[in-house]
Amino acid sequence: MNDILLMLPGPTTVHPRVLNAMSQAVVNHRGAKYGEILTETTELMSKVFQTPNNSYLLTGSGTAAMEAGIANTVAPGEKMLNVVGGKFGERFMKIAQTHGIDAKELAVEWGTAVTPQAIKEALDEDEDIKAVSVIHNETSTGVAAPIEEIGKVMKNYDALYIVDTVSSLAGDEVNVEKFGIDVCLTGSQKCIAAPPGMAAITFSDDAWAAAEKVETNTFYLDMKAAKKSGDKVPPQTPYTPSVSLTYAMNEALKMVIEEGIDNRVARHHKAAKASVAAVKALGLELFADEAVSSATVTAVKMPEGITDDQFRGTTRDKYGVELAGGQDHLKGNIFRIGHMGNISYKELTQTFAAIGMTLKGLGVIDDAGAGVSSIAESYL
Amino acid sequence: MNDILLMLPGPTTVHPRVLNAMSQAVVNHRGAKYGEILTETTELMSKVFQTPNNSYLLTGSGTAAMEAGIANTVAPGEKMLNVVGGKFGERFMKIAQTHGIDAKELAVEWGTAVTPQAIKEALDEDEDIKAVSVIHNETSTGVAAPIEEIGKVMKNYDALYIVDTVSSLAGDEVNVEKFGIDVCLTGSQKCIAAPPGMAAITFSDDAWAAAEKVETNTFYLDMKAAKKSGDKVPPQTPYTPSVSLTYAMNEALKMVIEEGIDNRVARHHKAAKASVAAVKALGLELFADEAVSSATVTAVKMPEGITDDQFRGTTRDKYGVELAGGQDHLKGNIFRIGHMGNISYKELTQTFAAIGMTLKGLGVIDDAGAGVSSIAESYL
Repeated sequence: MNDILLMLPGPTTVHPRVLNAMSQAVVNHRGAKYGEILTETTELMSKVFQTPNNSYLLTGSGTAAMEAGIANTVAPGEKMLNVVGGKFGERFMKIAQTHGIDAKELAVEWGTAVTPQAIKEALDEDEDIKAVSVIHNETSTGVAAPIEEIGKVMKNYDALYIVDTVSSLAGDEVNVEKFGIDVCLTGSQKCIAAPPGMAAITFSDDAWAAAEKVETNTFYLDMKAAKKSGDKVPPQTPYTPSVSLTYAMNEALKMVIEEGIDNRVARHHKAAKASVAAVKALGLELFADEAVSSATVTAVKMPEGITDDQFRGTTRDKYGVELAGGQDHLKGNIFRIGHMGNISYKELTQTFAAIGMTLKGLGVIDDAGAGVSSIAESYL
Repeated sequence: MNDILLMLPGPTTVHPRVLNAMSQAVVNHRGAKYGEILTETTELMSKVFQTPNNSYLLTGSGTAAMEAGIANTVAPGEKMLNVVGGKFGERFMKIAQTHGIDAKELAVEWGTAVTPQAIKEALDEDEDIKAVSVIHNETSTGVAAPIEEIGKVMKNYDALYIVDTVSSLAGDEVNVEKFGIDVCLTGSQKCIAAPPGMAAITFSDDAWAAAEKVETNTFYLDMKAAKKSGDKVPPQTPYTPSVSLTYAMNEALKMVIEEGIDNRVARHHKAAKASVAAVKALGLELFADEAVSSATVTAVKMPEGITDDQFRGTTRDKYGVELAGGQDHLKGNIFRIGHMGNISYKELTQTFAAIGMTLKGLGVIDDAGAGVSSIAESYL
């Protein structure tokens, strides 16, 4: 299983340094040693979120952090606005509904991004909106929302600003303090490039103030319990954490800081730009509006006349490159190239060579090398 | 950190085979390869639960599985009975309350076990009880509940039988089908001896029928979503799982089956019996009623005149053996020896030598070797 190159919008290929860290002996999660590792890891997390506030690790997926983000800050019956332009926007809607929140949808055409103006109008229309959720990087469509500009709008309203940066943090610009984000959450297995299974979240003072008023109906994801345990000496998690994934996150975050957040983001933007150019060089069409296309995943329309199985089956089984398909109504209509984490020209050359060979083999294109040649030009 | 012997009621020392398996490269959790590993792991899980029903892995702690167990099968406003004789029984109460369930407490003195008769009486008194929760092995007190005998009572009632076997499965007798358990849940880091961060749960047909009627207010722990994803080809989890911990669970469960469940349970009982004898040989007093004392953790009253810090600090820092303290009102009043997972005379000799040396060093006893000598006699 080591031979498959994962070019997915998560999980991403994990560096041996991180895998080695993860396989260290498990320590007592209530002891001083784990307390040290936890403190260091959450401090690294806050550095990457770019916030002076504390961060918390959750043993669970990004979805667990999404649920923690809203179920602790918006009470049942209260109104929140969710930007929905893809599968993860829909997920915030469903989570809100599950918790009895009055969930309003701000629908955006899939493949395009919400505008700050649209959010301003929605907030002006309804002053009962207690929170707004935005997916920074909608992995289902390959679109990045303008979270900095939205943040400028949000500063004029009392509503909490909740941002899912699961597939963007450490790969695209996210500055929690500067952008005025109240609740920011992420996952381990995307641009941070640790294995999946852990999530992280940070709350602003306003978010904590809201949480104080909410009698939450989640126990495992109760953030007030997380805070109480985090404040203990030594710091703890309320329930048993994944100790091994804490080690992995610790090492992966150290690698992020060693590289430098800005350098890492620039590297992701470069990979995105190179991927877009290579897609065009192959004569393929982008799914997302190029002006708002993601730094970490490129969504491409599936060429006419071939199936998802033919295309992705071949790149995976014949050429060892695993790409993502479309989700829900986009199944079979698009494929997605994840370029997050430890991504360089090496992975992209293999990927676009595989895509080119597959498409030529299927009779879709004539020049198998146009994509990979474009990657070389981009990285020259 | 490799030098500390963990003698906790979880996490336990993880075998290198399991750590190695965990550090394998991460595969796509939506692909066929992960589907195979997931299927094999959940089938192994059902073997260990001893049920013909499907098992499900949850990325989270045992607490997440406790919440999944009741929030999916008991609706807000419905009545359930929770046996409370320690911290984990209390936790079921709190989780039920968090979900708006009408939670009734069947209080049991800490250190003693509930009787089947007491459960029968509670059910006879109130026919509205939709479910009964029991902690099989109350790690906070070192007591095992008679879940087989309780199962015989439960068969005469419609109420669901929910059993937490977090710290007993694969270490004490648990037979989900034979005992008539409707919801059984466990954690990765106890007798299964994988690292912490994953839980498992299985539902009977009656539990699924109840779940169909409950509009649950948890999203991440929605078992109907877990079932739907588990039924896909290839089988999946609804949200991104900890792929690495799935590898670890897979390997750890294989080790359980290789040893044989009955052999493994017998090995735990032997360790428990030897520990109890060694505690007595040292002149110490058990906290739990010996007739119901746990197969996986032995709770001991702290000798008069010494503090938890003095005692456990010395066993850990001077002798490299990490023991557990008491929780809540038992803090400082008891200490607990976890003997679960890969436990043999080797770990127990080190442990009781450390306890003996510590107590003699603190002037509590005269014979530092009485405990370890007793271990040798027990294992002869």
